[in-house]
Amino acid sequence: MGKDRDTNGYVNASTEPPPANSAVNRRLLVFGGAVGGVLASHQSFAQTSANVPPNVPQWMKEQGAPILSPAYGVPSEFEKAVIRRKRDPRPTDTAAPSWSPLQNLYGIITPNGLCYERHHNGVPLINPDEHRLIIHGLVDRELIFTMDDLMRFPSVSRIYFMECAGNTQNWQNTNPDWTVQHTHGLVLCCEWTGVLLSTLLEEVGLKPNGKWVLAEGADAAAMTRSLPIEKALDDTIIVYAQNGERLRPEQGYPLRMFVPGYEGNMSIKWLRRLKIGDQPFHTREETSKYTDLMPDGRARQFTFVMEAKSVITRPSGGQQLSGGKGSYEITGLAWSGHGRIKRVDVSVDGGKNWHEARLQEPVLPKALTRFCAPWRWDGGPAILQSRAIDETGYVQPQHDAIVNARGLYSSDHYNAIQSWRVSSDGRVVFHVA
Amino acid sequence: MGKDRDTNGYVNASTEPPPANSAVNRRLLVFGGAVGGVLASHQSFAQTSANVPPNVPQWMKEQGAPILSPAYGVPSEFEKAVIRRKRDPRPTDTAAPSWSPLQNLYGIITPNGLCYERHHNGVPLINPDEHRLIIHGLVDRELIFTMDDLMRFPSVSRIYFMECAGNTQNWQNTNPDWTVQHTHGLVLCCEWTGVLLSTLLEEVGLKPNGKWVLAEGADAAAMTRSLPIEKALDDTIIVYAQNGERLRPEQGYPLRMFVPGYEGNMSIKWLRRLKIGDQPFHTREETSKYTDLMPDGRARQFTFVMEAKSVITRPSGGQQLSGGKGSYEITGLAWSGHGRIKRVDVSVDGGKNWHEARLQEPVLPKALTRFCAPWRWDGGPAILQSRAIDETGYVQPQHDAIVNARGLYSSDHYNAIQSWRVSSDGRVVFHVA
Repeated sequence: MGKDRDTNGYVNASTEPPPANSAVNRRLLVFGGAVGGVLASHQSFAQTSANVPPNVPQWMKEQGAPILSPAYGVPSEFEKAVIRRKRDPRPTDTAAPSWSPLQNLYGIITPNGLCYERHHNGVPLINPDEHRLIIHGLVDRELIFTMDDLMRFPSVSRIYFMECAGNTQNWQNTNPDWTVQHTHGLVLCCEWTGVLLSTLLEEVGLKPNGKWVLAEGADAAAMTRSLPIEKALDDTIIVYAQNGERLRPEQGYPLRMFVPGYEGNMSIKWLRRLKIGDQPFHTREETSKYTDLMPDGRARQFTFVMEAKSVITRPSGGQQLSGGKGSYEITGLAWSGHGRIKRVDVSVDGGKNWHEARLQEPVLPKALTRFCAPWRWDGGPAILQSRAIDETGYVQPQHDAIVNARGLYSSDHYNAIQSWRVSSDGRVVFHVA
Repeated sequence: MGKDRDTNGYVNASTEPPPANSAVNRRLLVFGGAVGGVLASHQSFAQTSANVPPNVPQWMKEQGAPILSPAYGVPSEFEKAVIRRKRDPRPTDTAAPSWSPLQNLYGIITPNGLCYERHHNGVPLINPDEHRLIIHGLVDRELIFTMDDLMRFPSVSRIYFMECAGNTQNWQNTNPDWTVQHTHGLVLCCEWTGVLLSTLLEEVGLKPNGKWVLAEGADAAAMTRSLPIEKALDDTIIVYAQNGERLRPEQGYPLRMFVPGYEGNMSIKWLRRLKIGDQPFHTREETSKYTDLMPDGRARQFTFVMEAKSVITRPSGGQQLSGGKGSYEITGLAWSGHGRIKRVDVSVDGGKNWHEARLQEPVLPKALTRFCAPWRWDGGPAILQSRAIDETGYVQPQHDAIVNARGLYSSDHYNAIQSWRVSSDGRVVFHVA
């Protein structure tokens, strides 16, 4: 077979390139990808190593690595630049975020190793055998649950996005060096497994005057938020697994609350306590923090839902179109805290003309939705934008519209359309609208 | 807030347990989970460390770990036993499988670090910049593609299972020590992203007499298989990403073929070459190997599709019911290479009575489907079974039925119902039907 492998195909391909005026190259003009393919491959015979056709690459001539190296797998060493990153130097890295590399992600699932982080006093190291969840307050019976107890309840697994309220700090809209990891990297989408909070509230017996739930984390910040009982009884999950395995430490191991569609801060990590009350608890994180200061000086409180939003992840800021003018794929992500994405439009001329993008099926409620659109780049300047529309009919706003309505005093819940500028040399940068 | 945290709830919960004859415990008899909850928690005050209620755990009294530790995340140190494993000592670990720990998995997504492996001459270390895909044979123009070229084509992302043809070696059905990782650990489910093979075949121009595709891997085994053109033009994908990130090395980095619903060996890893022919190529892996030897001595060839199958993953062999008699969740996985799972039935009495399980939505074609069923264990012996039915109406067979039809000469495509025996002491073991 080795001989067959050496003589099959490569000789044909390398010694008989189609003449420039052949039907091949005429047809190839229709699609840039293949132009890149043919040109790159024939140039490579002279330019690159013995590993490219017509040669048999070195890695076929020697035995590869055995199984279980390692027993828990890791990415290729050629992907080591694909990591979470922080944006700015900070006084502390324990009350800080790290951004997910959206420009290197595919589909809708965020791999567990690349899920963004936002902690308020670091990641606690919790022994799951000693972790407890207590439910008390306005209930018929106060109960304490071990992890084993919780694993015995009926479970659900659902794919949901989570976005930090502070994702996308484009209010001043003036940083041409930002990549999509910097601007939109505080969003993720995982398959979450756990017990519906409604199941546990039935277990403890919710009193009629129980209207709000205080959730407290077992971290040193004792992160606490107030959740309306309607949402608690709807789709809120007490989660112990993400993407098939137990929660990662920075995602709340061994237990977290997950509140679909709400600002990420509501999904209390390292969950240890739920107290039922008859009104909101007005904790620091919903008075001093996580409120929206409006132009008239009043602060909006309990702005839970993350509105519809989208962003093009490829091509995006800091990237370079690989093969000159021709065909490329424009792809990105859209999401809405109100439910399903109904449509995503894409523009390559800064919003003058819009084209409907293809949505990856299945389109799930309160999950990331991948959109794709083919683009034939003419080699000239272009401004790429995407615009999400959710099932409520809400349309993602332009930058000016949101600034006019919200002012510049608040930092959270920015969801305006993002622009990327493509230069004639193929460079892509953040575009100041 | 610290004071509030210390005084709220824990005092109530720890010093005022409900009396044994209270409405609490009467109601708790209805559901085992909470029985475990109350008993475990009150016992724990005497038995376990200062980290359980009413105390504030140590990890709330000290600052946690900063962000980006590490920048590419890893599981909790308390989960280090959750890894891929091999079953038997072997002459080599480069032509061998490693099993996925299904007993520790949740939902339907298999995390990339725990995807099973099956290699034929180890895992090659491939530089993606030097990797090429050539398409030749019965085409209008033979082309060579770089990874950059392939990234420019329209992409698709789809969630599909993959199962090794040799998964579940229960023909002799006589090993009480096997866990579900040993018996069924050669199956996985990921979100796969790449270019439809039909898109690339359109690019090279398929000749009318092109009926079969030879796919060759760039590993030292030069793994090769023949794929019918109908499947190549249907849903076969040339894949470069899994679960949101580039392929892992042991899954074919930087490029693989993925053939939904077919035996895993067809999804050639480290894909370097596709040759179009007018008949199958009869490689070693479809003549000497990956055929089914029947009782009459004839070998079935090209048995591509993995038939409907299911298995209970919790409780399963080697596990122990955590809290004595009471309520537990029975959960597991079902899949079919022919499309969607229509129904999964569960039995706790060795198949005398069957109960329909709940299926996790969305139920996707050719993807793992998670099923769940509540079970109140009476403390006596039990035999747990699951039975999958797919959208074609095919019903997963019993062990005797498949042995009667297939004999004991072949090792692949075993999909009979799996039995787990529960003893009065709560131990769960492989049950010899």
